[in-house]
Amino acid sequence: MRTPVSEDFAQGYPSDEAWHGYINNNDRVLLKVIRFSSPRSAGAECIDPDCTWVEQWIHRAGPREKIYFKPEEVKAAIVTCGGLCPGLNDVIRQIVITLEIYGVKKIVGIPFGYRGFGKELAEIPLTRKVVQNVHLSGGSLLGVSRGGPNVSEIVDSMQERGITMLFVLGGNGTHAGANAIHNECRKRGLKVAVVGVPKTIDNDILLMDKTFGFDTAVEEAQRAINSAYIEAHSAYRGVGVVKLMGRSSGFIAMQAALASGQIDICLIPEVPFELHGPHGVLHHLKYLLETKGSANFVEKTNAKDASGNIVYGDIGVHIHQEIKKYFKEIGDPADVKYIDPTYMIRACRANASDGILCTVLGQNAVHGAFAGYSGITVGICNTHYVYLPIPEVISYPKTVDPNSRMWHRCLTSTGQPDFI
Amino acid sequence: MRTPVSEDFAQGYPSDEAWHGYINNNDRVLLKVIRFSSPRSAGAECIDPDCTWVEQWIHRAGPREKIYFKPEEVKAAIVTCGGLCPGLNDVIRQIVITLEIYGVKKIVGIPFGYRGFGKELAEIPLTRKVVQNVHLSGGSLLGVSRGGPNVSEIVDSMQERGITMLFVLGGNGTHAGANAIHNECRKRGLKVAVVGVPKTIDNDILLMDKTFGFDTAVEEAQRAINSAYIEAHSAYRGVGVVKLMGRSSGFIAMQAALASGQIDICLIPEVPFELHGPHGVLHHLKYLLETKGSANFVEKTNAKDASGNIVYGDIGVHIHQEIKKYFKEIGDPADVKYIDPTYMIRACRANASDGILCTVLGQNAVHGAFAGYSGITVGICNTHYVYLPIPEVISYPKTVDPNSRMWHRCLTSTGQPDFI
Amino acid sequence: MRTPVSEDFAQGYPSDEAWHGYINNNDRVLLKVIRFSSPRSAGAECIDPDCTWVEQWIHRAGPREKIYFKPEEVKAAIVTCGGLCPGLNDVIRQIVITLEIYGVKKIVGIPFGYRGFGKELAEIPLTRKVVQNVHLSGGSLLGVSRGGPNVSEIVDSMQERGITMLFVLGGNGTHAGANAIHNECRKRGLKVAVVGVPKTIDNDILLMDKTFGFDTAVEEAQRAINSAYIEAHSAYRGVGVVKLMGRSSGFIAMQAALASGQIDICLIPEVPFELHGPHGVLHHLKYLLETKGSANFVEKTNAKDASGNIVYGDIGVHIHQEIKKYFKEIGDPADVKYIDPTYMIRACRANASDGILCTVLGQNAVHGAFAGYSGITVGICNTHYVYLPIPEVISYPKTVDPNSRMWHRCLTSTGQPDFI
Amino acid sequence: MRTPVSEDFAQGYPSDEAWHGYINNNDRVLLKVIRFSSPRSAGAECIDPDCTWVEQWIHRAGPREKIYFKPEEVKAAIVTCGGLCPGLNDVIRQIVITLEIYGVKKIVGIPFGYRGFGKELAEIPLTRKVVQNVHLSGGSLLGVSRGGPNVSEIVDSMQERGITMLFVLGGNGTHAGANAIHNECRKRGLKVAVVGVPKTIDNDILLMDKTFGFDTAVEEAQRAINSAYIEAHSAYRGVGVVKLMGRSSGFIAMQAALASGQIDICLIPEVPFELHGPHGVLHHLKYLLETKGSANFVEKTNAKDASGNIVYGDIGVHIHQEIKKYFKEIGDPADVKYIDPTYMIRACRANASDGILCTVLGQNAVHGAFAGYSGITVGICNTHYVYLPIPEVISYPKTVDPNSRMWHRCLTSTGQPDFI
Repeated sequence: MRTPVSEDFAQGYPSDEAWHGYINNNDRVLLKVIRFSSPRSAGAECIDPDCTWVEQWIHRAGPREKIYFKPEEVKAAIVTCGGLCPGLNDVIRQIVITLEIYGVKKIVGIPFGYRGFGKELAEIPLTRKVVQNVHLSGGSLLGVSRGGPNVSEIVDSMQERGITMLFVLGGNGTHAGANAIHNECRKRGLKVAVVGVPKTIDNDILLMDKTFGFDTAVEEAQRAINSAYIEAHSAYRGVGVVKLMGRSSGFIAMQAALASGQIDICLIPEVPFELHGPHGVLHHLKYLLETKGSANFVEKTNAKDASGNIVYGDIGVHIHQEIKKYFKEIGDPADVKYIDPTYMIRACRANASDGILCTVLGQNAVHGAFAGYSGITVGICNTHYVYLPIPEVISYPKTVDPNSRMWHRCLTSTGQPDFI
Repeated sequence: MRTPVSEDFAQGYPSDEAWHGYINNNDRVLLKVIRFSSPRSAGAECIDPDCTWVEQWIHRAGPREKIYFKPEEVKAAIVTCGGLCPGLNDVIRQIVITLEIYGVKKIVGIPFGYRGFGKELAEIPLTRKVVQNVHLSGGSLLGVSRGGPNVSEIVDSMQERGITMLFVLGGNGTHAGANAIHNECRKRGLKVAVVGVPKTIDNDILLMDKTFGFDTAVEEAQRAINSAYIEAHSAYRGVGVVKLMGRSSGFIAMQAALASGQIDICLIPEVPFELHGPHGVLHHLKYLLETKGSANFVEKTNAKDASGNIVYGDIGVHIHQEIKKYFKEIGDPADVKYIDPTYMIRACRANASDGILCTVLGQNAVHGAFAGYSGITVGICNTHYVYLPIPEVISYPKTVDPNSRMWHRCLTSTGQPDFI
Repeated sequence: MRTPVSEDFAQGYPSDEAWHGYINNNDRVLLKVIRFSSPRSAGAECIDPDCTWVEQWIHRAGPREKIYFKPEEVKAAIVTCGGLCPGLNDVIRQIVITLEIYGVKKIVGIPFGYRGFGKELAEIPLTRKVVQNVHLSGGSLLGVSRGGPNVSEIVDSMQERGITMLFVLGGNGTHAGANAIHNECRKRGLKVAVVGVPKTIDNDILLMDKTFGFDTAVEEAQRAINSAYIEAHSAYRGVGVVKLMGRSSGFIAMQAALASGQIDICLIPEVPFELHGPHGVLHHLKYLLETKGSANFVEKTNAKDASGNIVYGDIGVHIHQEIKKYFKEIGDPADVKYIDPTYMIRACRANASDGILCTVLGQNAVHGAFAGYSGITVGICNTHYVYLPIPEVISYPKTVDPNSRMWHRCLTSTGQPDFI
Repeated sequence: MRTPVSEDFAQGYPSDEAWHGYINNNDRVLLKVIRFSSPRSAGAECIDPDCTWVEQWIHRAGPREKIYFKPEEVKAAIVTCGGLCPGLNDVIRQIVITLEIYGVKKIVGIPFGYRGFGKELAEIPLTRKVVQNVHLSGGSLLGVSRGGPNVSEIVDSMQERGITMLFVLGGNGTHAGANAIHNECRKRGLKVAVVGVPKTIDNDILLMDKTFGFDTAVEEAQRAINSAYIEAHSAYRGVGVVKLMGRSSGFIAMQAALASGQIDICLIPEVPFELHGPHGVLHHLKYLLETKGSANFVEKTNAKDASGNIVYGDIGVHIHQEIKKYFKEIGDPADVKYIDPTYMIRACRANASDGILCTVLGQNAVHGAFAGYSGITVGICNTHYVYLPIPEVISYPKTVDPNSRMWHRCLTSTGQPDFI
């Protein structure tokens, strides 16, 4: 049943026995791998004063010896929701290729996210030939969008179309939808596998080392940061401001600042700051212009002010204006350059590291569906690939821990003080 | 004693208390994080038939509350040995910056590897200003080379120069040297910290997730692979051959093939193959040219033939010639294009991901020396940063496990059969 | 007197006789090289109904046999004014290197544009060693800014400092300043050579094939255009909008659109358009969304509306808002993505083509000064390098000719109608 | 007859009257635009001792008001011959798009060069949709190869297929073939237009400013040169050697060296050199290693030695070995790194500058065919686009003039002496 039937490999393809070792259903990966000896250790997460280490094990992802679908009966659908993220095409491609290797013949793309389950938009037939080189460009072959029909309508549509495997690429909200679809299918007694692949350029999914696209985003952000650095350094008392995207977590800003070695101030939503006052950002900026002659900034959208209020609207524009106002008031010159590289980062193709991550996640999504799992998502945890129940990863967004070593490293690199 | 004394931060720098949580000396990171349920699970490493999971803990890297050197008395030296690797300048830079933050004033580079401990070459004074932008270009600020004086001469030279901290960037051989220097210093009763930073673009150091430069190498290899793919596809019965470097392990070739999605055959030293015969590489190549019209290859230097002999000399050239000879003999055309991107990969600057890795390794090397460790090396294990005794990581080179999921994924991606 | 005295070449450098043929002072380059046979020919510039071709000759740039300064007595200064432009460091570098080859020992940079002639800022000593690798990064080693002291104060400062050669990199305004400095020096009877190098990323200098940085800008704009294309194509009825910089001429937008092959609408200031109405941009946009599903835009700042009024403020933001409003009013969805890559383009290092242009312009600036010219600027005309009197090139900014073949090619490529 | 019939533009496309001014058949472009005042001026090409300037005029390329083919009756074919060159896909794409705008419905690609006129290979149908994004990747959509049937067989095949327009992309040899096809068609009284587009990455076509792909090649060569520079500078007495491709002219090597500013020795076939002896390359290399510590080389294949013999085989390998032998003999160390980036340069996609050049050449090729020209090729001359009879541009390959300013600039940049 598992023999690959893709014509490409009719003769040349190795038999199952030769080419893979299966994953045993009882293989597990550890979730917590640090034993903190004190609650005061950097980044410590302790359940008791002794910081007792707790064994927690997760299911290991990969191909199982027994599969729960006859490949020739499967109709698989792929849908990409939300905004763009580098690697979407890589994951789509790998799901299609892996399904074909299992012997699945009916593979379709649902256009423009869940919206594509509506009547007016036609399914996109997918084959290895169609996807062969899609990973060489950014974006999503299938189109993305937000919103769409409700869960019941989606499952109606799936029934009509005869879809038995649904692969959903999206963030927290999309995964909540995928889980609801899974539950509705189970309620209706449908033999359908719903498998998620977390797609969030912000890296804000719980329990995972990182999500695909994040690495590429950090890489591409370097271009903007370096441009800001050069603008700031070439200007008389220049200030470079780079706004990096993200909804509520500052991983991109933190990692991009750290990687660049060219950032003096990094503001993230997890760490409150004051703009004004003797400890404020603006005062430090003045100090930097006097001592270094220029300053380079990176900040997440929605960074919070010290009172915990989100700065509404576009924080980049807001800070830009505040800096100008401040220096005008104190009578010193300051030449501010503001860069928002959001779309140029999102639309990139995946770099090699994300290419591999996407490849493995795509393969594992298919392995998981064939292994009979539904309502799960795939991820990487402590460098190993795992399956996790959707509800466990979406209860809240992962955020930067201000006590973590990584944030401290970022502070060491920028040399910035507390802004409070 | 810890207060940063670098003038850059004379006023603006945050006090110790505020900016970091220390690592406790008893913090530990788990080495083995998979529990295999059967010796037949993919990639299983079992000590008994039940695959009992063994807890093994490693020291966590990072800043300690107590330090064992007075910064103002330290003279630190950095040396880079062997061949080029992306990220060398990043590590050098971060060691210098971190030393300055501790308050060290005397920092020098030893030029051209251990050779620089000879008489004729002058030390290179290093400061934050000197290293500020060195990470923006590849290579090594200090120069690299192989060989040099013997251990005793090196330690003599260190004593003469008054070096109390030595940071050594290099591969297995260089680390063996560093350990010998450490032992010699201990034998002479010198208060010297010798700390290694593994530098091997091949990623062949035991117990570590990856070494710096590897990620960049996989990324840069894409350029060569894509060129070979385009040459092969644009030619009439074209064959692209890319030789990737490495001494004895195939990680770069495997990962680069997987990331590209454009490789039909991947040969690595860990997996024997036959060129000739009905299961040989050449026969499969013929099949590919007949069915796909072109083929794209990637291979490690020193790939072994089936009898276990290393193919001496340049395997790229050897295979290139064998392919030509074979198709001439069978009377079919074949247009072979051979690319060796070795130096163009090695000389790259580090990408963002390696930039972060280098930054953290460099910081931790300094933290380790100040914590009083010597004869250790720094690394990343299950995404966490650790200190390991040098002898534990250099007993033999890490190689690709032919039973690992990663190699299976590579085979799935290339679609290649066993070549035996 | 001409023998190079730079120590680098003390022995190895070729003698004058061997290495160059001089430019003869009477060598000339033709300005007009097309003979239009009719005033109705595309791009025709005719002085009479017969389109009589007029010979106009310009001075050829390059080294002269006789030089008018003793190199050992020269003090040369370089100043960079205005905004950043790729290639500034290349030109600075080449001026310094060429001056050293002539034997000049006193070379300085004036920091932050003409402003640097004020009291408070110190000269930057320049040597080959200082500039060796500056062309590998963008920006200006010397810093740029707008404004500064008046001409009389600048010439006072030059006299105080003993400057006998001044190399000025800047746009139209800066060149006007350079010419005024030249006139003031002549009035005071000073033996000073003032030579300009046109620096305008917009390519808006009269009589020149192109200015340095322009080619790089067009290249870098591709990144933004491709991102917009991918965002627009991946979105449900997506519209990509890219704002390209420039003050009053649309060369970057036109060439970038043409090079990309991915632009549906290109708006430039030289060609009036209507947003609203049956021939307006918005109506065409609606047509594109209905037929192609997405649309991709590029536009220059300050594009004019049909009544000839400049759209004040940020036209990108303006059009962005008008598009949203329009589709909201007609009740159709449209997902608009707006990209402003200005600073990321300006801060780039020069590409190879600009690298060569900068090298030759820098060399010729020095040759011109040594040949005794002052009040001139250097340029490329019909692929040959020339000297032009400053007043001839700055009387007004060069703009795109709406009747030129190049604009017609752009229209053919976009397929856009007249928007009037 | 000219109205565009492509459905894409059925409504939205501008009418002819609105969108272009035609080129008048009598419009001309000047060939010689420098007036040398002396035969001793750098680069002088003189016909008499007075260097009398000669007016020579070439046909201007572009759309004519009258066309000589009914678009609906045309069957157009495109063929790409020889090796890869950046921009092939851009030219193919633009020919297809322009043909569709004229209203041509039957457009095919001939696979794998002239070889595709043989029986066994099927034509490739081409439409705007097929070519829409091909310019985003390198290579040739149609495949390339050398050789093929003889002229008579090709014209037989064209008659069978009903081809009335043939667009030929290739170098000197391919153009000779195109001219022979043109003559054979004329002999047979066929109404066929044969139009060439010069494709030579070496830039070795007479009378043209540059050929497409050359600019990209110079750009991509920078990567190899910078790698060699970094390897050489990081090594102890390191020598970097970069071999750049080309058959008999050194334009790529010269321009790439000049653009990089990192080359110490540039060897091209047009300028003889000695390896050995007191004026030889090796002696200068020794001098460089002693004074600068490293050296960086670039060289064309087939560079000639001083006796005028071509160094057969691979000159890179030859020089590599001679350098090693020399330094071994004189007992000094030298660490030589050799890079051959040929295929990585050829397989690149075109940069923006070449993208525009390809776009215009492709458009003009179609305009020329519709204007009734045959046996011509398209080019750029003094920045203007022209048609030239094939025989005029292929009589011999264009080479670097050792007396030209450009070669002198290269020598100034490298600082190398005469090697004789």
